[in-house]
Formats: sequence, C-alpha cells, structure tokens
Amino acid sequence: MKMTVIEPWLIAPAASVVSLLIGAFLFNYVSSKDAGTDRMKEIAGWIKDGSRSFLKTEYTYLGIFVVIMAIILSLVLGITIGVTYIFGTLLSGLAGIIGMEIAVKANVRTANGAKEGGLSEAFPIAFRGGAVMGLMVVGLALGGISIIYWLTGDPEIVLGMSIGASTLTLFMKAGGGIFTKTADIAADLVGKIELNIPEDDPRNPAVIADNVGDNVGDCAGSGADLFDSYVAAIMAAMILGGASQIKYLETVPLVYAGLGIIASIIGIAMVRVKKGGDPGQALNLGTYLTTIIFAVFTLVATFLFNYDLKIWYSNITGLAAGLVIGMTSDYYTSINRAPAMKTAESAQTGAAIIILTGFSYGLISCFPALLGIGIGSAIAYSIYGVYGVGIAAVGMLSVAGIIIAGDAYGPIGDNAKGIAEMAKLGDDIVDITDEIDAAGNTTKAITKGFAIGAAGLTALALLASYQQIVNDLLQKTIVFDLMDPIVMMGIFIGMSVPIIFSAMIILGVSKNAYRMIEEIRRQFREIPGLMEGTGQPDYDTCINIATKGALKELLPLIVFSILTTLIVGFVGGIRALAGFLSGSIFSGFFLAILMANSGGLWDNAKKYIESGHFGGKGSDAHKAAVIGDTVGDPFKDTAGPSLNTLVTVISQIASLFAPLFIAYALIAA
Amino acid sequence: MKMTVIEPWLIAPAASVVSLLIGAFLFNYVSSKDAGTDRMKEIAGWIKDGSRSFLKTEYTYLGIFVVIMAIILSLVLGITIGVTYIFGTLLSGLAGIIGMEIAVKANVRTANGAKEGGLSEAFPIAFRGGAVMGLMVVGLALGGISIIYWLTGDPEIVLGMSIGASTLTLFMKAGGGIFTKTADIAADLVGKIELNIPEDDPRNPAVIADNVGDNVGDCAGSGADLFDSYVAAIMAAMILGGASQIKYLETVPLVYAGLGIIASIIGIAMVRVKKGGDPGQALNLGTYLTTIIFAVFTLVATFLFNYDLKIWYSNITGLAAGLVIGMTSDYYTSINRAPAMKTAESAQTGAAIIILTGFSYGLISCFPALLGIGIGSAIAYSIYGVYGVGIAAVGMLSVAGIIIAGDAYGPIGDNAKGIAEMAKLGDDIVDITDEIDAAGNTTKAITKGFAIGAAGLTALALLASYQQIVNDLLQKTIVFDLMDPIVMMGIFIGMSVPIIFSAMIILGVSKNAYRMIEEIRRQFREIPGLMEGTGQPDYDTCINIATKGALKELLPLIVFSILTTLIVGFVGGIRALAGFLSGSIFSGFFLAILMANSGGLWDNAKKYIESGHFGGKGSDAHKAAVIGDTVGDPFKDTAGPSLNTLVTVISQIASLFAPLFIAYALIAA
Repeated sequence: MKMTVIEPWLIAPAASVVSLLIGAFLFNYVSSKDAGTDRMKEIAGWIKDGSRSFLKTEYTYLGIFVVIMAIILSLVLGITIGVTYIFGTLLSGLAGIIGMEIAVKANVRTANGAKEGGLSEAFPIAFRGGAVMGLMVVGLALGGISIIYWLTGDPEIVLGMSIGASTLTLFMKAGGGIFTKTADIAADLVGKIELNIPEDDPRNPAVIADNVGDNVGDCAGSGADLFDSYVAAIMAAMILGGASQIKYLETVPLVYAGLGIIASIIGIAMVRVKKGGDPGQALNLGTYLTTIIFAVFTLVATFLFNYDLKIWYSNITGLAAGLVIGMTSDYYTSINRAPAMKTAESAQTGAAIIILTGFSYGLISCFPALLGIGIGSAIAYSIYGVYGVGIAAVGMLSVAGIIIAGDAYGPIGDNAKGIAEMAKLGDDIVDITDEIDAAGNTTKAITKGFAIGAAGLTALALLASYQQIVNDLLQKTIVFDLMDPIVMMGIFIGMSVPIIFSAMIILGVSKNAYRMIEEIRRQFREIPGLMEGTGQPDYDTCINIATKGALKELLPLIVFSILTTLIVGFVGGIRALAGFLSGSIFSGFFLAILMANSGGLWDNAKKYIESGHFGGKGSDAHKAAVIGDTVGDPFKDTAGPSLNTLVTVISQIASLFAPLFIAYALIAA
Repeated sequence: MKMTVIEPWLIAPAASVVSLLIGAFLFNYVSSKDAGTDRMKEIAGWIKDGSRSFLKTEYTYLGIFVVIMAIILSLVLGITIGVTYIFGTLLSGLAGIIGMEIAVKANVRTANGAKEGGLSEAFPIAFRGGAVMGLMVVGLALGGISIIYWLTGDPEIVLGMSIGASTLTLFMKAGGGIFTKTADIAADLVGKIELNIPEDDPRNPAVIADNVGDNVGDCAGSGADLFDSYVAAIMAAMILGGASQIKYLETVPLVYAGLGIIASIIGIAMVRVKKGGDPGQALNLGTYLTTIIFAVFTLVATFLFNYDLKIWYSNITGLAAGLVIGMTSDYYTSINRAPAMKTAESAQTGAAIIILTGFSYGLISCFPALLGIGIGSAIAYSIYGVYGVGIAAVGMLSVAGIIIAGDAYGPIGDNAKGIAEMAKLGDDIVDITDEIDAAGNTTKAITKGFAIGAAGLTALALLASYQQIVNDLLQKTIVFDLMDPIVMMGIFIGMSVPIIFSAMIILGVSKNAYRMIEEIRRQFREIPGLMEGTGQPDYDTCINIATKGALKELLPLIVFSILTTLIVGFVGGIRALAGFLSGSIFSGFFLAILMANSGGLWDNAKKYIESGHFGGKGSDAHKAAVIGDTVGDPFKDTAGPSLNTLVTVISQIASLFAPLFIAYALIAA
C-alpha cells in the first residue's frame, strides 16, 4: 500500500521500452556482422527481395481490408473502436516487417558466421536475430496495450486493438502458411522427383520462393501468432479483472506481462553455446530458466504489491499447463522417441501404413493436451474463478518473448543452411548450419505446443470475457446451459468453422502448388540452358504466384469465418453464439494439436530413416516416409497453426458485436 | 379415448411378431434356393466355417465378459439390471448369429442365381437375405423392449437391456471391423503387391478370411450397430416421455417403432428389379417409399390415438435430418460426383496429394451433417422440448428395418462376387454379381450417413435422459452450465475418448495385419506347390490370427472406455460427466462422419480411376489412389463405424451409474 505513488502497472510500459531498446540493439548487432561473399549476398538479396515483395503485396491487399473493416467498425460500434482497430493492425504489421527484415539479414550473416568462426560465431547471430523478433513483438504489443489503457482506462477498448492484431495475424499466419507450403511442395515435386536435382538447388525457379516461405510462414507468421494470443490473453484477463470489486485485479495482467518481458530478456541473455556445445539444449535451457525467473519475479511482485497469493497460483497453473503441453508435443514428435521411431518403422509396410500410424499417434498426442487444458483451466477456476483462467492464460503467455525468439530462430537457421548450400560453402560449413537448423526443429515442437496451449487457454478466457460483457450489457448473470438446444446447435455449427477452414486451406495449398508446378515446368521448357546451369531462372514469377494464390485462397475463408460468426449471432443470439465459440474451441484446439503433432511426427520419422534406419535414403521405406512428410506439411505449417488465430478472431468478433446481437438477434437472449 | 380397450403400444409386440415371422419366411425362401456346383459349395463352406469359427471364438470371450459385467451390475445396481443386461446381450447376440447364417447362405445362392437366371434371379436372393437381417434385428429389439415394458412398466429397466445390447455391439462392430480390415489389408499387401496374384484368388491363404471379414464386419456388425441405436433411442424417448404428466408420451415411441416395422416390411416387399433394371435405384426407392409410408402411418396413428400433433412434427424432423445427412454422405462419396472425381484427379500429383484432397473433402462433408444434427435437434426441441429430441431420434430409426436390409445386402453381394470369381463362373456371371455388389456400395454411403445421424440424435436423447435421471434422483432441476469449469473439463476429457479409441483401433488393425502378413508369407514359403495352385492353403490359421488379434486389440479399449467414464463420474461427479458425455458426442460424431466419408471417397476415387480415367488401372494415379484407399479402409470400416456405439455405451453407463456418482463422487453435484 506504500507503492501507490507509482502505479505498479507502469512496469508494463517500462518493460516495453526496455524490450524495444534491446531489440534495436540486437538488430544493430546482427546488422554489423559481415554478410560474406558476393555470391552469398546475391542469394540473400533474392530472398530479401522475395520476402519484401510478398509482404508488400500482402500489405497492399490487407490495407484495403483493414480500411473497410475500420469503416464498418466505426459506423457500427463507434470511432474509438475503429481507431484502436487500425492501431492494432499497425502494431502487428510493424512487428511482421521488423521480423522479416531481421530474418533476411540474420540468415546470410549466420551462414557467414559459420564460415568464419564456426558454431560459436554463427549461433549467436541466428539466435539474436530471433530475439529481435521476440522482443519487438512483446514490446510493441504490451506498449500498445499500455498506451490505450493509459488513455482510456477501459480494457474493453483494448478489444479493438486486439481484434486488429488478430485479423492481421490470421492473414499473415494463414497466408504465409499457404505461401510456404505452396513453394515447398512445388519445389520438391518438380525438383526432387521429376528432375532429380537436389533440394536448395539454384536452378530450381521455386527455390527462392521456398526460402522466402520459411521467412513469411515461420518467422513473420509465428511472431504474429503469439502477438495475437498475447494481446488477447492480457485483454481478456483485464476485462475479467475489471468486473471485480477489487480494483487492482484489472492491472495485474499488465504487471505480470511486464515482468515476463524482463524475465525473457534475462533468459535471452543467458542463451550461449560453447565450442562443441548443443544449440538445441541451450535454447531449451533458456526457456526453462526464463520460466523459473518469471515465477520468482511474479511471486516477489505479488508480495510487494499485496496481491492475493491465489492470483500467483493461477499464474503458475497456466505456466505448468503450457509446459505439460509443450513437453508432450516434444515427446510425440521428437526424432529419438518411440512415436517417431515406430512411425518410421511402419514405413516399411508402405505409404498407407505410415500415414495411418502417424495419424494415430497424432490423435493419441491430443490426450495429454486435452487433459492439460481441461484440468488446468478447472484448477485455475477453482483457485480464482474465471479471473483465474484469464491469469493462467497470461501466465502461459508472459514468457512469449523467449518463446518467439526460439521460434524465429528456426527459419533463420533453415535459410542459413539454404544459403550455405546454394553458395557452395562446402560440407563443413553446411554441417554447422545444419546443426543450427536441427536445433530449431527441436525447439519448434515445444514452442508450437506452447503456442497452441496458450491459445486454448486464451480462447477460454475470451469466452469468459464474452460472458462478462454480455452480463454487463444485460445487467444480469446469464447461464449458457449445455442442454439448451440453442447453445447445443451453436456448438455443432461452431465446431464446423475450424473444420471447414482446415479443409479449404489444405485444398488451397494443393491448388496453389499445382499452379506453381505448371510455372516451374514452363520455365524448364522455355528458358534455354536452365537445366545446364547457364540460364537464369525467373524467381519472381514463382514468388508472385505463391503470393497472389495465397491471398486468393485465403480471403474467402476469412470472410466466411467472420460472416458465420455474425450470422449465428444475429440469428441465434448470444446463447447460440456462446455455443458457437465453445464449439470452435473444441474442434479448433483438437485439430490444431492433431495437425501440428502428426505433421511433426512424419517429418521426423522421415529424418530418422534418412539418418540410416530401415534402409536409409532412397529405400522404399524412405519413399513412403516422404509421402507421409508431404501430407504433414500443410497440416503442421498451414492449417494447424492458423486455427489458434481463427478461434481468437471469432471470439473477439463475438465480444465486439455482443451489444448488436442482444439488440437485434432473431432468437432473444 | 375410445381405444383404451386395446392399448395402442401393443402395436409394438404385434409388429415384432410379424417381423420375425416374415424374417423366418424369407430365411426359408433363401435356403430353398440351389447353392450351385460342388466347387461353389466348397468355397461357400470355407466362408461359412470361417464365419462360424469367428463368431464362436468371439462369443466365447464375450460370454466371459458378459457374465462378469452381469455379476458386477447385479451386485452394484440390483439383480433386475443384471438379468435385463444378459437379456439384451442374448437378443443382440442372436441377431448377429441369424444375420451371419443368412449371409453365408445367401452369398453362394446369389452367385448361383446369377448363373442360372441372371440379375432378376440373383438380386431378390441377395436383397431378401439382407431383409432377413433387417427384420430379425428390429423384431428382436422391439420384441425385447415390449416384454420388459410389459413385465415392469418401467422404461429405466429397459436401460439394462439396452446397455447389454450396446456392449455386445461394440465388440461385434469394432471386433468385426478389426477382423475385416486385418484380412483385407494383409491379403492385398501380400497378394496383389508382393506376389502379383489377383484379388479373391483361392491360392491366397487370407482370401477366405477376407470374405469372412465382409460378413463379420459389415453384415453382423452393421446389424448390431443399428440394433443398439434402435433400442437406445426408443428407451431414451420412453424415459423422457415417462417424466411428463401426459401418460401416453411414454408409449408413443413404441407405437411409432411398431409402425416403422410395418412400413419397412411393405417397403421391402416393393423392392424389385426388372430385367435390365438398376438394383441401386431399386434399393434407394425402397428406402424412400418406406420413409413416406412411415410418415403417413404415424400421422394416421397420431389422429387415431389423439396424440399431440407436435409429436408427429418432431418425428418428421428426425426423419428429415436423417435424409439430409444420408444424402450429403451420398454426394460426398459417390463415384460420379465432384468430390470423388476431383480426388481422383488429384491422384495424378501423387499419393500425398490424394490423401490431402480426400481428407479435406471428408472434413468439408462434416459441415452439412453438423448443421443437420445441430439444427434438427434445435427444431425438435423447439417443437416439444427434450421429448421432441427423443422422438426425432426414434423417427429417424423407425425405418431401421429397411436400412439394415440394404446394409446387409452389401456384403452378400460382395461375397457372391468373390465366390463367382473363385469358382471361375466366367466373366458374364462375375459382371452380374459385380452389378449387385456395386449397388451395395451406393446404398452403403446413404445408410452409413443415416446410421451416424441416428446415433448422433440418439446420443443427444441419451444425454437428455441422463439429465432426467439425475433430476429425478436429486429431486430438482440441475443445470449443466457450459461455463462451469467442471463441465468444461468434462468436455475436454470426453472429447479424448473417441479420439484415443480411433487411434488405438487403427493401430490395432496395422499390428494385426502385420501378424497376418507374416503368416501368409510363411505359408507361401513352407507349403509346397501353393503358388502353383497344387498346394492347399491353410485358411483357418489366417482366420484364427484375425479373430484372436481383433479381440486382443479390442478388449483393453473397451475396458479403457468404461473405466474412464467411471473415473470421471466418481471423481468429477455428475456435472463433469455431463460434459464428458457431450465431449464424446462432439468428437465422436465429427470423427465418425469424417472417417466414413473420406474412406468412402478414397474408395470411389480409386474405382473412378479404375474405370479408365487419368490413366486407368496400373497408372501412377492408380497406384496413388490405392494408397488412399488403404488409408481409408480402417477409417470407414473399423474406426468410424465403432464410434457411434462407443458413445452409446458410455452414455448408458453414465445413466446407469448416476445414483452411485451422486452418492459417492469426490466433487459433489
């Protein structure tokens, strides 16, 4: 009570500023490194130009979409929401640009680091490149929330910013996901299978698009993904806290999030690899240390600011649930664990059996995640009601800084390896970049599980905040009865949204890949000397096809999702919509885990065979495993990771339009 | 009110008796036909012996399971439940035996009919064989319910019989499903791929097991499936009706079900194929006519017995929902519709793309089904509350007689084709049996959709009757609040039961197929002259492996499902259990539709290519399509169809044990 001179929640903007400053410092650190030979710069230039070209096209379309949405929101819900909406899209878009820019700088400098000083020189460049993305995302997100809260004092207005960030994220995540798998599948099918040229061969017109895809899909996309969950979770917890009599509950999420940033910065500083060290281990150690530091910091703050200790317990519940989901994802996808090895073994009986086996293990891997979310949220609730659930989601996401850093590190390593191969730096250097790349795959499973778990808890918190908003509007406590057939109908319809979205986006990848395959074949047919290495492939056309195709496939899907939400709201009213949101959480969470884990599993089963088991590369088992891996590609990199954001978007649309549904729905509340 | 001398519900036992008599008459009709040449009789004898041997082994294990369950139920819930439980298993088991016996008679006689008199002679044998199964199932089921209701007047005691039927069904459906796909996959992988001998070649030691599998999986299994839903739906509606002040509501389900049997008998009598006619059309016409006759009969009865007209509307809602789901399943799987053709087209880009495309269309096909169930149940509820939902389920299932007849017709035609090929009856005869077989595939999609839809509505009715039972026990109206984290936790855990069940049963098929592959290879290695056609394969060992393996894989799964239900009930109490049941309906219904439709789609995409498109048989597209078909096999014939029954079993266990959960659960109501 002595601390009232300076409001505790000002930790949030302070941490944001520190985060942005350190991000800028690391950006300069990476930029100051040498980009290597002219050939390396040339290749990196293609990737950079391709990435910028994708982003430019995407942002042009998005600009139109955002303006239309902002006008509609301003007209229907007031100018404040319209403005905060644009603010959210700008922040999220800026995070995407920064993430992309640092990725296309860090990739070639990592490759050059490997050439000049080996792993101990290359690793920090790659990791700090990722850290720029991590720190910028959390810095911009928490900074944005702080500004709006400082100006308005109303967490419900943060909703406008949050939904702006979410719609942009959905475009970046799903659009980037379609782009990356379009290029990946097309490059592989024509290059490796039809023409028998190696991966990352510069003769392949799709090879630059493939490397661009790693950036736009994994780096910008994943960063945006957690941006979205991060903002939504903090906002939902603030709304739930604001509904209480206890004034400070509203700002606790800001305090915890600020401390999470500080913990992440310390964790990032501690990630180091000595000569001969294991980069994967270093990354994981950094994550675990950050988690512990965060737990300690929040405990201290809880005592210092005289918060109820139960809030801290809820916080830890979320953190624990995140770890459980992350670690089980790790178990079910790791190359040296039973599921991947048994899936690899099953490849000996043919492609059909490896598909069935990987799919089955993917299904089984949903069990711990479903238990984790179900039991975790129930415990958090029993500790501190719906607010406890909100705080659990915040707890899980507070360490987003280092999680994103690890996630964005992946495509940098992947790109570095590609550049090393294309620039023919020699086997030793490629091996080092390969080690950096492999470490990215290990952390990817954990961070993906973490991201899905966090999104699951966030979605539950958003559902609770939707109920809170409805209660406030109706001036009574509304119950969504599971046996109410309007609620039940909503659940069935809501379940179908992630289902249709997954299906359409996978079909979109197939369609788009088909267009690109035609283009690659055309270039090999029409450009003289291309196969011999004397002709110059037209990389840009491939990038353009992937970009335009991705947006073309995506736009109707996003409109479908938003319209369905509005239709259910205006026809079925707020009860149907509560069911609808729940249904989308149920099928969305399930499909996200299934697709992420089975996709990761097939990928590693293939790698396990490639490392010399069951006949190794070129064997029948390997061919079967390649089919499994290709099936898994759009599962794990396109459909799966988009579902989180999809659920977040429709949850927030529901909250935002709740007053209109109450006033005008056919079926009354 | 003038009709009180004879109770209207006595229509039910009367219709049962008629049904059983006509079933017996048709049994004799089929038996009286000539079974053809000695070679045909020999082959049919192997299939018959194999089928009997499977059933004998299965029933031996089942006997032990049933006795243990009956003892537990008697001790915990009283001797009445124990006795009715055994009664239910006996009826369901008897239906299985009759269905199997008629199938192994009708298959060879259909083949001989094709030889002697062509399609117009062969078709009635196949269809009436199926009709025996249909009439026996509904006759035994409704007869059994009538007896218990006549003796006790308490629909809750019918629950004991219903759960007896359900547990047996789960064994038959899932066990038969593992058996049939074990044999199918193993026979194909060794026969077609390794040794390059044609399908249905008598040299293949697994060929008889494959034909036995058609009987035990499709014929006995599907009949038992609808037996289970049929009894459960009628019982649930009776319980919901019994809770009302209006006395006659309790017996309306019996009256409607009785009328459904009469309508089915008329419909069955009208199914005829003239020379050059289309058997598929005849089967569908029979189903549609039965539906119309049933609608008229129930309307007349509703006026005659002075029932509230709203009951009839609910009834029609269920019927309409069933047709919508059946017809959309038909659209998404039919060989001459866009989804199958586009899936076939995608096979040109390789196995991975056909898997992704078929899976995506399977996902999309869930949309109309989810809408159908969601909106259908909401309409039924708005007409007549939870009782309306119960009556909708009864309405959908009342025409089960002809649905099962069409379903059981399928494997008879399939077997007839196999016998015609193995006995070398010549291309003309094989073509006729092929036409009969193909018609079975067309109706299969519709009846499968119908069965899944009916099970979905039944599960909702069971959920409502669970709530009714809990209300009665607690003497108050309990609300299952969707936002109650105990309910929500139950949903997440409940969702995982069908997910795990699907995964484990698919892995079980793979494991079991692997054992059988080893055995087939051993026989070709060790039996002299087998490949040349002079050695005699050991069919029995293959059948034994499939049988024992199926039961071995299945038993732990059934125990897991029942135990999970009991653990959730005793720990989380009735609220967690309400969520648990709902969650199992959500994921179970979704996965059942997804697996049935994507499996059917891959099957027909392959057939479309085989009919000469995209390169036809032997092309790369065909090879890719075969992989798709093999992935779909355990989807559509093992995992998918078992999920209905799984959900029914756990719903009923929950109702049955509700008093104990209320008394002893850790978390109180």
